Amino acid sequence: MSSVDLKTMANAIRFLSMDAIERAGEGHPGTPLGAADITTALFTRHLKFDAGDPLWFDRDRFVQSNGHGSMLIYSLLHLAGYEKLGIEEIKRFRVLGSHCAGHPEIDQACGIEVTTGLLGQGIANAAGMAVAEAFLNRWLGPEIVDHYTYALVGDGCLEEGLGQEVISLAGHLRLGKLVFLWDDNLITDDGDIRLALSDDMPGRFRASNWHVQEVDGHDPQAVALAIDRAKRDPRPSMIACRTAIGRGIPRVEGLRIAHSGRLSADDTEAARRHLDWPAAPFEIPAGILGAWREAGRRGEPERRAWQERVAALGPEKRRTFDRLREGRLPDGWDAALRAFKRRAAESGHADHGYKISGDLSDMLAEAVPEMLSGAPDLEGATLHKRGLAAFTADDRGGRYVHYGVREHAMGSMLNGMAAHGGVVPTGVTYLVFSDYMRPSVRMAALMGLPVKFVFTHDSIGIGTNGPTHQPVEFLAAFRAMPNLLVLRPADAVEAAECWEIAMTHRSGPVALVFSRQPLEPARRRHDEENLAGRGAYVLAEAEGGPRRATILATGSEVAVALEARRMLQAEKIPAAVVSMPCWELFEQQDADYRSRVMDRAAVRVAVEAAVRQGWERYIGEDGGFVGMDGFGASGSVPDLYARFGITPERVAAEVRKRL
Amino acid sequence: MSSVDLKTMANAIRFLSMDAIERAGEGHPGTPLGAADITTALFTRHLKFDAGDPLWFDRDRFVQSNGHGSMLIYSLLHLAGYEKLGIEEIKRFRVLGSHCAGHPEIDQACGIEVTTGLLGQGIANAAGMAVAEAFLNRWLGPEIVDHYTYALVGDGCLEEGLGQEVISLAGHLRLGKLVFLWDDNLITDDGDIRLALSDDMPGRFRASNWHVQEVDGHDPQAVALAIDRAKRDPRPSMIACRTAIGRGIPRVEGLRIAHSGRLSADDTEAARRHLDWPAAPFEIPAGILGAWREAGRRGEPERRAWQERVAALGPEKRRTFDRLREGRLPDGWDAALRAFKRRAAESGHADHGYKISGDLSDMLAEAVPEMLSGAPDLEGATLHKRGLAAFTADDRGGRYVHYGVREHAMGSMLNGMAAHGGVVPTGVTYLVFSDYMRPSVRMAALMGLPVKFVFTHDSIGIGTNGPTHQPVEFLAAFRAMPNLLVLRPADAVEAAECWEIAMTHRSGPVALVFSRQPLEPARRRHDEENLAGRGAYVLAEAEGGPRRATILATGSEVAVALEARRMLQAEKIPAAVVSMPCWELFEQQDADYRSRVMDRAAVRVAVEAAVRQGWERYIGEDGGFVGMDGFGASGSVPDLYARFGITPERVAAEVRKRL
Repeated sequence: MSSVDLKTMANAIRFLSMDAIERAGEGHPGTPLGAADITTALFTRHLKFDAGDPLWFDRDRFVQSNGHGSMLIYSLLHLAGYEKLGIEEIKRFRVLGSHCAGHPEIDQACGIEVTTGLLGQGIANAAGMAVAEAFLNRWLGPEIVDHYTYALVGDGCLEEGLGQEVISLAGHLRLGKLVFLWDDNLITDDGDIRLALSDDMPGRFRASNWHVQEVDGHDPQAVALAIDRAKRDPRPSMIACRTAIGRGIPRVEGLRIAHSGRLSADDTEAARRHLDWPAAPFEIPAGILGAWREAGRRGEPERRAWQERVAALGPEKRRTFDRLREGRLPDGWDAALRAFKRRAAESGHADHGYKISGDLSDMLAEAVPEMLSGAPDLEGATLHKRGLAAFTADDRGGRYVHYGVREHAMGSMLNGMAAHGGVVPTGVTYLVFSDYMRPSVRMAALMGLPVKFVFTHDSIGIGTNGPTHQPVEFLAAFRAMPNLLVLRPADAVEAAECWEIAMTHRSGPVALVFSRQPLEPARRRHDEENLAGRGAYVLAEAEGGPRRATILATGSEVAVALEARRMLQAEKIPAAVVSMPCWELFEQQDADYRSRVMDRAAVRVAVEAAVRQGWERYIGEDGGFVGMDGFGASGSVPDLYARFGITPERVAAEVRKRL
Repeated sequence: MSSVDLKTMANAIRFLSMDAIERAGEGHPGTPLGAADITTALFTRHLKFDAGDPLWFDRDRFVQSNGHGSMLIYSLLHLAGYEKLGIEEIKRFRVLGSHCAGHPEIDQACGIEVTTGLLGQGIANAAGMAVAEAFLNRWLGPEIVDHYTYALVGDGCLEEGLGQEVISLAGHLRLGKLVFLWDDNLITDDGDIRLALSDDMPGRFRASNWHVQEVDGHDPQAVALAIDRAKRDPRPSMIACRTAIGRGIPRVEGLRIAHSGRLSADDTEAARRHLDWPAAPFEIPAGILGAWREAGRRGEPERRAWQERVAALGPEKRRTFDRLREGRLPDGWDAALRAFKRRAAESGHADHGYKISGDLSDMLAEAVPEMLSGAPDLEGATLHKRGLAAFTADDRGGRYVHYGVREHAMGSMLNGMAAHGGVVPTGVTYLVFSDYMRPSVRMAALMGLPVKFVFTHDSIGIGTNGPTHQPVEFLAAFRAMPNLLVLRPADAVEAAECWEIAMTHRSGPVALVFSRQPLEPARRRHDEENLAGRGAYVLAEAEGGPRRATILATGSEVAVALEARRMLQAEKIPAAVVSMPCWELFEQQDADYRSRVMDRAAVRVAVEAAVRQGWERYIGEDGGFVGMDGFGASGSVPDLYARFGITPERVAAEVRKRL
């Protein structure tokens, strides 16, 4: 091991970071300067990685959850020798197009495991990674998967409620290979931590069954020893590292201004004198850089040994592992799904939306052994557990996580699982509770992670539970989110198609939205093609003449549309029904297809048990809309549909008055 | 005091609740049966209220946070004699239009302080009420305001991250008149609590400086004694009441099926035998009902004494108190605001959006002494503190809450303050962090509470912080929410108008949305009328001929629209700019006004640094839109506007190609 001491190596992080921040004119110096010693201990003594192969599947995962201090991770990765993070990138910190963005943005090829910056998300992602690791470790064996997950965490992550959800659940699941390094610097954006926090933070962790240590965060040897103890304890570990924010710059050290204050050339000069740093801005003395580069490759022998173990796997296990790490589904994964679809079309299978989704996820879980499921204390009401054993502290082979009433942790842990790879993460809750995890869904969309979010009980059709539980604005709010497929199937056939889309969609998350109430069969003929994959399609064409009306609908309201069409056709008004399970996929169709489906020459009326916003795109300014214009109410489903006028009669009337 | 013992009185709750649930065919029997003894102790021995005057301002507040067990509060209120909750209403539990909705819905005239059912919300509301109480107690004196706030809380509320945010903050602020009664029944919807929770829950509360007791929740005397101790302790108190869920029905008691399982007539019969209950369904023996009615009026003498103290107030203090309890602003509250508006128009006042909002909230806080403000660790970046002292454990006169990084607690505590009355609650954070508190905003909208949510840093205009911090879908997502005014002013003049709208809007919350970057002056002439109050208006009419183009814009993009108009006018294309600070208010204008502003005969192009969704309502299917079609990026503001093409040139081009 190199003779350069860890404190000197940590100073390299400090100077790279302060130089970049000074150059950029902004950028949170507090964390990179304060936590330099902690992360030096981690990267040089413990973290299992090889900068020469950032995507090594069994690498330890490191997440900087306090992403605002992003120059810390950029400095670490540059020093460790990640190729994509050369010094020119460091100099372009916060410039459009740089790998060194304002907050770390997922790019695993250069060592950034997940996008962070929204507080609490990173530690939840880390907990999800630890679940994925534990599951794959049990399945594939420790010779293939056996790594730790570390997260650097600030006060903010622990003040967020999400933080406590993660603490509670990680302790409950005894995620022993999860280690938090708390940068305990006593300073927040507002100033003294005591302005807003009096918690006994170690006590909070202990109350949730964590292993807790407290160390001097500027003593890298002490930190390294603590990590050693943490790794040996069977519980998840939190190491409280007491630090001085902005350590090294005399003007700001220990003060509020270190958090996100600007640095001047005077500051960096003063720091050079104060820490006796010999090099010019952006230069690292060769011996120190050499020590870092050595640290960055010290995992190479371990990686090679791992590769040999992988090469020595039996053919079947090797195929499985390759498939998992590449995110490919097993051959024949969709056989049962497709059989279900055919059967549903031919038998006129009608059932509660959530039950249909449960049936489908049950058969998918059977066919796809890497599928992990779970719900926040709604097993009985969402029916996505079925044959799955629970993933618990004692059974890592279980594939269903009882999240407790912790939607936000679920969402962000699913993101962590997806970022880890090797598993297909799925979580289900009521649509209305999705607001509690909306930041997770957004982060999945932003990162392009293939998470399957399932949301049931999707409208006033939940009935007597009343307006708190009746989502009316959620479809619109999710459709507004970039890079999210919102899928709301009309019946069992479309449900199978939507689940097929969900399983094969790799570039972002999906929101699969299901009713509580029964979905009447809409598709009575089997189609080989996945019609939902078009986003929208003509479910029932107008008859008896050129189309005079188009009725657009999704989900449970497709049945309303079909009945309205029947009424209109009986009056000799040729009317078509267009089912629109996924707006985003429809937008990807060519203009010709879109105009054929929509037919602007006809009267257009949409029906959906939700707010109107967004529908004008398809019905135009003069089209009709039948749906909700406010919150719902507590009552029986028939009473509610009647009260809010979401009826075939009303749809037909909206058509007639426009003819 | 009546001779009927508390256990018998509690059984009255049990039978009313189970009869109503059996009749409704659904409705969560677990809580009303399990927590009947706890709440009997509270209502008969401690809660300061008078069923004959539910709106008594100094009543103790009671919140049933585990709202799914709603028959508990309905039974309590019926038994205590709240007029609006007669036995016929109980029989109509879960029927459309009943006061006994699936989850409790705010109706203070019948004793329901807030709408609950989304877990964690109720206890956060309660904490907000306790803040309002402490503030008003300090201001008006204990002879006018001096009450406790109680919340019944289930495991779910404490599993939610929001729960921990509340625990941490209430402990930090030492809200000593806040008492939680935890229905510690060891059962959740999934079953045994140990499926998902291993926390030492009392330990979590102790780590946040709460007073904690553990009692037998079926011993009402013990509970009453514990409440007594809780009231005397200066810390907030949590009383862990160990109970058996579904207590009283032999088939379900202590079991998962008690949580939300259906009850049969056999169950209620078995319970009658088991508890030796003499009365038929929905009948309460006269002696027991009498004891309850006596308990429901036992606060009357105290209320009368309080009314006498109010009547004896000096005239000025009386006027102030009457104004506060009626929610009226002080005379002349808007003088400085209106002067600012005039000055801004005349001087061409340009400044950062968040700074303008800070200036305005500063002058409003000066004029409106009941205005409470706060932010989740963003004081420096939102500038809404200024002259305000912090509200702390030691200074209840402070008017700014340092919430720490706890957006969700902030949002839901603001709701609690608004529900309490007497204060004007305001909270500010970055728009992108609003997702963490979206459930709070929704609950404010659903309850119709006049909360002022201020969201700054509203677009890619936040710059180098990058896509995590750049809201692109948030305007659309909030506009989709019923009963929320979304106000996005274009400049300092509109900012003053929007704040004026916010302060006078009483029927629901507002979201005031401000840029980070400077807002150039758009309104250069003073108008007495609040033009933003129209929602949208013609800011600059077309010149030199009939209007050929209408450019619609909000906020920081109004300057882009004005510059595009200048370009078009230079080409002799008569173009108008319509500023649309509030879509919801525009929708309330008459058809004639709306069509004059929009002018469908002209080409329409909208510009907003956000997603398109919803704009089709105003630009039609063939209009142009200049904005975002995905997430943002990290870079300087000019670089980002150029990269994403949000420029006057592009707006002008979109107009030209449609002429």
